[in-house]
Amino acid sequence: MNTTKTINLKNRPTGIPELTDFEFTSSVIADLQEGEVLLSSKYISVDPYLRGRMSDTKSYIKPFELNKPILSGAVAEVLASKNTKYSVGDHVAGMLEWKETQIIKTDQLLIVDPDKAALSAYLGVLGMTGLTAYLGLTEIGKPKKGETLLVSGAAGAVGSVVGQIGKILGLKVVGIAGTDEKVDMLKSQFGFDEAINYNTTKNMNEAIAKSCPEGVDIYFDNVGGEISEAVLFNINKFSRTVNCGAISVYNSTELTRSISVQPFLIKTSSSMQGFVISNYADKHPEAIMQLTEWLQQGKLHYIETIIEGFDKIPTAFIDLFRGKNKGKMIVKI
Amino acid sequence: MNTTKTINLKNRPTGIPELTDFEFTSSVIADLQEGEVLLSSKYISVDPYLRGRMSDTKSYIKPFELNKPILSGAVAEVLASKNTKYSVGDHVAGMLEWKETQIIKTDQLLIVDPDKAALSAYLGVLGMTGLTAYLGLTEIGKPKKGETLLVSGAAGAVGSVVGQIGKILGLKVVGIAGTDEKVDMLKSQFGFDEAINYNTTKNMNEAIAKSCPEGVDIYFDNVGGEISEAVLFNINKFSRTVNCGAISVYNSTELTRSISVQPFLIKTSSSMQGFVISNYADKHPEAIMQLTEWLQQGKLHYIETIIEGFDKIPTAFIDLFRGKNKGKMIVKI
Repeated sequence: MNTTKTINLKNRPTGIPELTDFEFTSSVIADLQEGEVLLSSKYISVDPYLRGRMSDTKSYIKPFELNKPILSGAVAEVLASKNTKYSVGDHVAGMLEWKETQIIKTDQLLIVDPDKAALSAYLGVLGMTGLTAYLGLTEIGKPKKGETLLVSGAAGAVGSVVGQIGKILGLKVVGIAGTDEKVDMLKSQFGFDEAINYNTTKNMNEAIAKSCPEGVDIYFDNVGGEISEAVLFNINKFSRTVNCGAISVYNSTELTRSISVQPFLIKTSSSMQGFVISNYADKHPEAIMQLTEWLQQGKLHYIETIIEGFDKIPTAFIDLFRGKNKGKMIVKI
Repeated sequence: MNTTKTINLKNRPTGIPELTDFEFTSSVIADLQEGEVLLSSKYISVDPYLRGRMSDTKSYIKPFELNKPILSGAVAEVLASKNTKYSVGDHVAGMLEWKETQIIKTDQLLIVDPDKAALSAYLGVLGMTGLTAYLGLTEIGKPKKGETLLVSGAAGAVGSVVGQIGKILGLKVVGIAGTDEKVDMLKSQFGFDEAINYNTTKNMNEAIAKSCPEGVDIYFDNVGGEISEAVLFNINKFSRTVNCGAISVYNSTELTRSISVQPFLIKTSSSMQGFVISNYADKHPEAIMQLTEWLQQGKLHYIETIIEGFDKIPTAFIDLFRGKNKGKMIVKI
């Protein structure tokens, strides 16, 4: 009987997760049934949002169960297949359990091409991160050449791609981030025109006005809260806000209050719209093709921190909250 | 030398305007020049928003000047014309000064047909009110048959038309208003399916949930503030909010704060968009044609209070703030 190493959620963490919150176990690999594939994990993505699923408080995503494997984005190789969609040797990307080897019955895994991009890229710039950036910006932001795009959480995995796509599409791009190092990185590595460090800026309203002298046409919002309040004073007529994330209020147990947006929206005929990647599933293949092209042309850059070894997954995940990664954190198996 | 009765703004009102804030004067009517028309006022619209223009505080609209005529929506007859667009005997609608007779050089006045609808209707259901209701609902609300439409300020001139158009388009329509009399009127005269009196309702969130058991797909918002906060808890996936007015916060001298909308928009992939009628000028003719057709078919109802006599304009305006009107307040000259 074959078995595989598995990582279960042992305890629901309080605050920053600890190694004792995870348990390494061994689980049985059954015989392959019709429609199933046997997968060997190659790269596993660890992401901050997984922390939310480890708590059992009410959230937008269902919590993980205790003593069951954790699930995250991963790239794997097909070792055996009884599913006509997948052949032995294919590389696939999708949501997989934290196991070295696993059997899954699905048609939802995306076949990815290791010749077009590094396999790890399919967990970042060619995965959820890139899709969120590209489809949020194009479908809701509706960019027109020469407009000004402002991005909050700009040094994050999504924000840095949003800004680069903005430059490719001919926009003026301004980013907001939390350290001088990140601000420098936005300008030197990702080609942002301007960047603002919100931690050292006293008056964000004025700082945005200075960096965006022609006003803000598109606001790609990853954070919500006070930063987004300051943006309201700088939006142009017909501006579009892409509400992609609201990190600043997610962890609040009470409803947060902000400056009322209605008078600003009316005054400027502006819109705000919530973005969730799953609404645009029909556009994913086209988007991945475009992102792959830009990546191959050297127009898209990304930063990743790769940790080696299945056993290091919990450490890599915990290190996310200690700021030990730069860019996308990925574990190579 | 011909002269005409004119009403100037004498003092900027404090609180509810008084008769002494207005001055009746006589102004000269010059000779008609090329491109000009001589107009005789027939119906003059008095509207609450004019109060804002009488103050010199910063607002979205330029304040009226002291000792100059007040301007509002009006219907007039062409007495003489040196403008090829307008002929003697034409009836026109547009923004005119509070004068019995006036000369104006413009191409912006709309020629209206007294055989198709009462002339006063062109100041309400076939005027700005109707256009705002129709274009706000169709262009931003994007209604689909069977959806639920919630309207705040539902007994107002705009809200009552929004609800009726919603019914014509096959929506379930729920209104929010401030008295039991208005609530009854919404259901009995304007065909709303349900109506809520926010002044006698303790928990608006629950009341909306009860009246909209399938959730809110379109929220036509005339008020903003607390009522709109309660709506957030009831919006469906892909809901659209038409931000048409925010009366509840207009008169506040400080920025008001409300429950942060971002997490609700993200959770439901919903949108909010500011609506200003002037953005849709190219669609006005088509919209007026549609509204006129519905009016002639007896599908649109409206309520108006008509006061007779040019000298009664200030009184009619002041009575708006004493609740003496039902529906649109209009002065017949």
